[in-house]
Amino acid sequence: MLVNMSSGATRQEIDHVIERIKECGFQAHVIEGAERTVIGAVGSSGRRSEIEALRAAPGVEAVIQIATPFKLVSRQLRQTRTVVDVSGVRIGAEDLVVMAGPCSVESREQLLETAQAVKASGARLLRGGAYKPRTSPYDFQGLGVEALRFLKEASEATGLPIVTEVMSEVDVETVAEYADMLQVGARNMQNFSLLRKLATVSRPILLKRGPSATVKEWLLAAEYLLAGGNANVVLCERGIKTFETATRNTLDLAAVALVKELSHLPVIADPSHGTGLRSLITPMSKAAVGAGADGLLIEVHPCPERALSDGPQSLDLNGFAELMKELRKDPLRVIRAA
Amino acid sequence: MLVNMSSGATRQEIDHVIERIKECGFQAHVIEGAERTVIGAVGSSGRRSEIEALRAAPGVEAVIQIATPFKLVSRQLRQTRTVVDVSGVRIGAEDLVVMAGPCSVESREQLLETAQAVKASGARLLRGGAYKPRTSPYDFQGLGVEALRFLKEASEATGLPIVTEVMSEVDVETVAEYADMLQVGARNMQNFSLLRKLATVSRPILLKRGPSATVKEWLLAAEYLLAGGNANVVLCERGIKTFETATRNTLDLAAVALVKELSHLPVIADPSHGTGLRSLITPMSKAAVGAGADGLLIEVHPCPERALSDGPQSLDLNGFAELMKELRKDPLRVIRAA
Amino acid sequence: MLVNMSSGATRQEIDHVIERIKECGFQAHVIEGAERTVIGAVGSSGRRSEIEALRAAPGVEAVIQIATPFKLVSRQLRQTRTVVDVSGVRIGAEDLVVMAGPCSVESREQLLETAQAVKASGARLLRGGAYKPRTSPYDFQGLGVEALRFLKEASEATGLPIVTEVMSEVDVETVAEYADMLQVGARNMQNFSLLRKLATVSRPILLKRGPSATVKEWLLAAEYLLAGGNANVVLCERGIKTFETATRNTLDLAAVALVKELSHLPVIADPSHGTGLRSLITPMSKAAVGAGADGLLIEVHPCPERALSDGPQSLDLNGFAELMKELRKDPLRVIRAA
Amino acid sequence: MLVNMSSGATRQEIDHVIERIKECGFQAHVIEGAERTVIGAVGSSGRRSEIEALRAAPGVEAVIQIATPFKLVSRQLRQTRTVVDVSGVRIGAEDLVVMAGPCSVESREQLLETAQAVKASGARLLRGGAYKPRTSPYDFQGLGVEALRFLKEASEATGLPIVTEVMSEVDVETVAEYADMLQVGARNMQNFSLLRKLATVSRPILLKRGPSATVKEWLLAAEYLLAGGNANVVLCERGIKTFETATRNTLDLAAVALVKELSHLPVIADPSHGTGLRSLITPMSKAAVGAGADGLLIEVHPCPERALSDGPQSLDLNGFAELMKELRKDPLRVIRAA
Repeated sequence: MLVNMSSGATRQEIDHVIERIKECGFQAHVIEGAERTVIGAVGSSGRRSEIEALRAAPGVEAVIQIATPFKLVSRQLRQTRTVVDVSGVRIGAEDLVVMAGPCSVESREQLLETAQAVKASGARLLRGGAYKPRTSPYDFQGLGVEALRFLKEASEATGLPIVTEVMSEVDVETVAEYADMLQVGARNMQNFSLLRKLATVSRPILLKRGPSATVKEWLLAAEYLLAGGNANVVLCERGIKTFETATRNTLDLAAVALVKELSHLPVIADPSHGTGLRSLITPMSKAAVGAGADGLLIEVHPCPERALSDGPQSLDLNGFAELMKELRKDPLRVIRAA
Repeated sequence: MLVNMSSGATRQEIDHVIERIKECGFQAHVIEGAERTVIGAVGSSGRRSEIEALRAAPGVEAVIQIATPFKLVSRQLRQTRTVVDVSGVRIGAEDLVVMAGPCSVESREQLLETAQAVKASGARLLRGGAYKPRTSPYDFQGLGVEALRFLKEASEATGLPIVTEVMSEVDVETVAEYADMLQVGARNMQNFSLLRKLATVSRPILLKRGPSATVKEWLLAAEYLLAGGNANVVLCERGIKTFETATRNTLDLAAVALVKELSHLPVIADPSHGTGLRSLITPMSKAAVGAGADGLLIEVHPCPERALSDGPQSLDLNGFAELMKELRKDPLRVIRAA
Repeated sequence: MLVNMSSGATRQEIDHVIERIKECGFQAHVIEGAERTVIGAVGSSGRRSEIEALRAAPGVEAVIQIATPFKLVSRQLRQTRTVVDVSGVRIGAEDLVVMAGPCSVESREQLLETAQAVKASGARLLRGGAYKPRTSPYDFQGLGVEALRFLKEASEATGLPIVTEVMSEVDVETVAEYADMLQVGARNMQNFSLLRKLATVSRPILLKRGPSATVKEWLLAAEYLLAGGNANVVLCERGIKTFETATRNTLDLAAVALVKELSHLPVIADPSHGTGLRSLITPMSKAAVGAGADGLLIEVHPCPERALSDGPQSLDLNGFAELMKELRKDPLRVIRAA
Repeated sequence: MLVNMSSGATRQEIDHVIERIKECGFQAHVIEGAERTVIGAVGSSGRRSEIEALRAAPGVEAVIQIATPFKLVSRQLRQTRTVVDVSGVRIGAEDLVVMAGPCSVESREQLLETAQAVKASGARLLRGGAYKPRTSPYDFQGLGVEALRFLKEASEATGLPIVTEVMSEVDVETVAEYADMLQVGARNMQNFSLLRKLATVSRPILLKRGPSATVKEWLLAAEYLLAGGNANVVLCERGIKTFETATRNTLDLAAVALVKELSHLPVIADPSHGTGLRSLITPMSKAAVGAGADGLLIEVHPCPERALSDGPQSLDLNGFAELMKELRKDPLRVIRAA
């Protein structure tokens, strides 16, 4: 870490910082520049958080963190790519893995029809919401355990493993009974109590990026899972909040490419939430593949205009079949038959 | 609600939308414009979410929501301002209520010293974190129940009621035993499981705005609390995420003024998190008062440069006394002695 | 346009709006909803801006624009795609057009070496800055006319047409003498004086999206050019400003896909400025192609670590050759030999 | 400046950077940390931009700028506050200076009526747009020179000096003939050609912050003016673009407080553009005063609902009189009679 003294810092203020750096178990290296002094805190066993607090000491302008803040998720620690196995489907390996299904599970029929169709088109996992995080308390909140049962049935009927969101620590065990992979929704990315609970579960986790999370914050949320004992984490870019209103969110595909550089974890993209517009799902799916995504998460509904949530960003069954055909033309990633 | 047809919509597409609007329990009013057709869905008892889904129907360009999405928090419903009573301290009444204390409770001594000092300077509530949401799993996570005990002791010693964050549904009852007011942190603003639990608690809630929440989303999060049965809600603006990096967040004081226009709930501001810079706390506290805030939340630490969290944005004990002196010069709001 | 009355609007306020709508040359269609009244202003020949101003009338909550604000750039007006011919290179046709070269023209040698190399690798246009918009007045501001002469020479030596930025109305004629295509930089996207001048020039324009421009604002900037008489406009997405700091900007590829839906104009992407990181140029170039971009703008420098501007986001000559090889593997767009 | 080597940097890569630092005229100070090496470039006479380019050298992770990038605008250079005199009105001195008038000059009558009224209420400068930067080419673009003549007449009638926007280099001399202060609009903040021209003019400049400009970029734009010879610069915060759509922009009052800390230049706030909502102008004006603003820029129109631009964010004549009364209650700043 580097402590950047302000240009008017006194000798005494500089000495105080040097002393504190030593007290915290680091060596202090001083660079006296033309305009100001910078002091490096060097060593691996000191108390880092106390150096950060020096930002509050007189004469200090900034404390600059130099080391990477995440460890277990980092490619510095682990050079080989992690492949996450979800009941036999390998995410992060050579295949592009497409997960598809309705935003919300609305009925047994809706789900089974969708599951059969997406399976036939080449999806490898079935998605579907049982517990729905809704901005308004007056919107449809999901069918809960009943939906989980429908998901299980659809999985047995099609052979597709299930990924579904868990919103509450209290529900983690129940959801883990039914689902093959547990999803942390974007709005819960920094629900650290939920992350800590999920770190102890024997199911892989799909961790969506928060709508205002930096790549660093996102990787540190994953670090909670790995540090707590769950190494089977797949990251999912789903768009960030920006000033642009023509799309629901801004799908940040450079984050996909950057995460693949910084971390060994697989990363997928969600062009449905990422754009909010059905007509953009196909071009942005191709774009995600170009950026290096290991998979896609696509909302599919038999009749989007009657969907209880997210209809405008859902493909219908034919639309999904068309998308899969388009993706197969792309030789960058092989999509094998399920 | 209004369904805005695209300029190329066919007669058949328009008729389909009209039919669906009727099926959903609304009347359909058609406006045929020069360039396109707009169809109003009129009525109070129809199924709104199904109209929203029409966005996915062919020929539809947008569905525009006209009615206010929140009800119980709205001034349309309730003209008189809500005053929230926190163990005798009235928030939203004539006084400006300043809540102060350390970001984290670090020790019995640190807390008691701070509590005595902020009380002497005029604070009306004591804040202090027992459970800390930290971006990194390797940072100090709070003392938990031990901190709650220290808070209770400090409250008894000073007479100041306590406000502290609860991060997990599972901890709600424990925290409610010790604290007078429960805080929902910014990153949990849309943790709907936590909100539903807090709706059932007999303690007032301090609901911080999420770093990427619109004013509408923030009020809808409060609506979860009111709809669930807890009407004692105070809102807290604490800065939003923007491209600006010179400050930690961008304190959105227009949101304070706007919330006072839209809602009957009290609203306070947190210039510590809102700016991340100690030197900006005093000007932005005055600014918040100018914008109409009912109170302030200020981080205070006996020795910020040794704080385990948020030192750079904490005032020391003298700094807080100075701030309170400055605020007393401002006649817009009376700060009575505690 | 629709005038959305507030829920408490009086009969008198509603009547006043109806009257004004008629005064402005429109018909007024009233929808009385359960909660509020909406009034449509219908007609093609009224004075739109006066309806917008009704937002300021008592009892009005919002004025909603329904019609598309842009005309000449819109696909509603013109269904066939525009192909822009830049001295024989067709942008917006079947080929992916890669424009490459240094951020700044620094010397005759640097430019000629780069031009020969990018030509050999398959670039179709040569880019290079003669006038540089720099955040600081103390940074290198470009070689001006001397750079234009080097560009001309490089063009003659390689056969590659030239694209270069013009920053000032006063320089438009000079730059147009040397360059085949004139670039409007991101920070000048809403320099309307410059746009009006460029509308009168007989050169195609490359219009970069402003770092905080919505897609709508961007298309309206293009509308200035078309309305002023210059129909040869290529749009360029180069990243927007968001809270993310790991990349220089956030490359908004959904905007590329959306612009292709809304407009007949060609659109290209600039992954150099869009990410600011050399290692992300190749994945984001592929992503841009997947999203439907008609071309790419790539910064290339013989020795990026000695570049006078934007070295960190420039490929070296080998790096560019590698990128072009990667792009040729992608069958979605054919890159023909130059 | 500090060069932060990546954790896997080789000895050779480190040596190369050290060598380059010396070649560029700096001394190199090496800090070998536990995880990585940091190299300081020390000295005042080296070639900074070449050190920045080292970001592109192998093994380099980041180049960190330590010194303040702006000089002449900085309080480090000049401790005493600049007071800008606009034809006798002193901005940055003890008085709060309120500038008021219509967004656009629409007619002689509209302007004279407004000028008389705002003068009577206590405004000190008259604002009014002659050249209007409009997002759409089909919106009212201003009356140009005719408006300048009306402004001159209104100034002579009331004694209020004039501030008006200049959009084009070509118009600078004409506008300077009529106006007492020239405004650079938000969208032209980084129109460096215009800034260079204005640096040579003998009129004070009002420099609005760009909607996506960081505080640093804003101060560097001001640096262009001072470096070019015009020291009479007043900064104006007018809101930045964020994800929030309830207000037109997000008025960043912390930027006002921060600029007063970093620079000796006066800074004012524009709550009209900053919020876009008339009802928020008064609270946000008070907030701006609390944050330390030296003045306010307020849009006033005799009949906002008939304004040709920005009606919804304009006060009418009574509304402005009310605002001035409210501000006079605030003892933090004295508003003397004009």
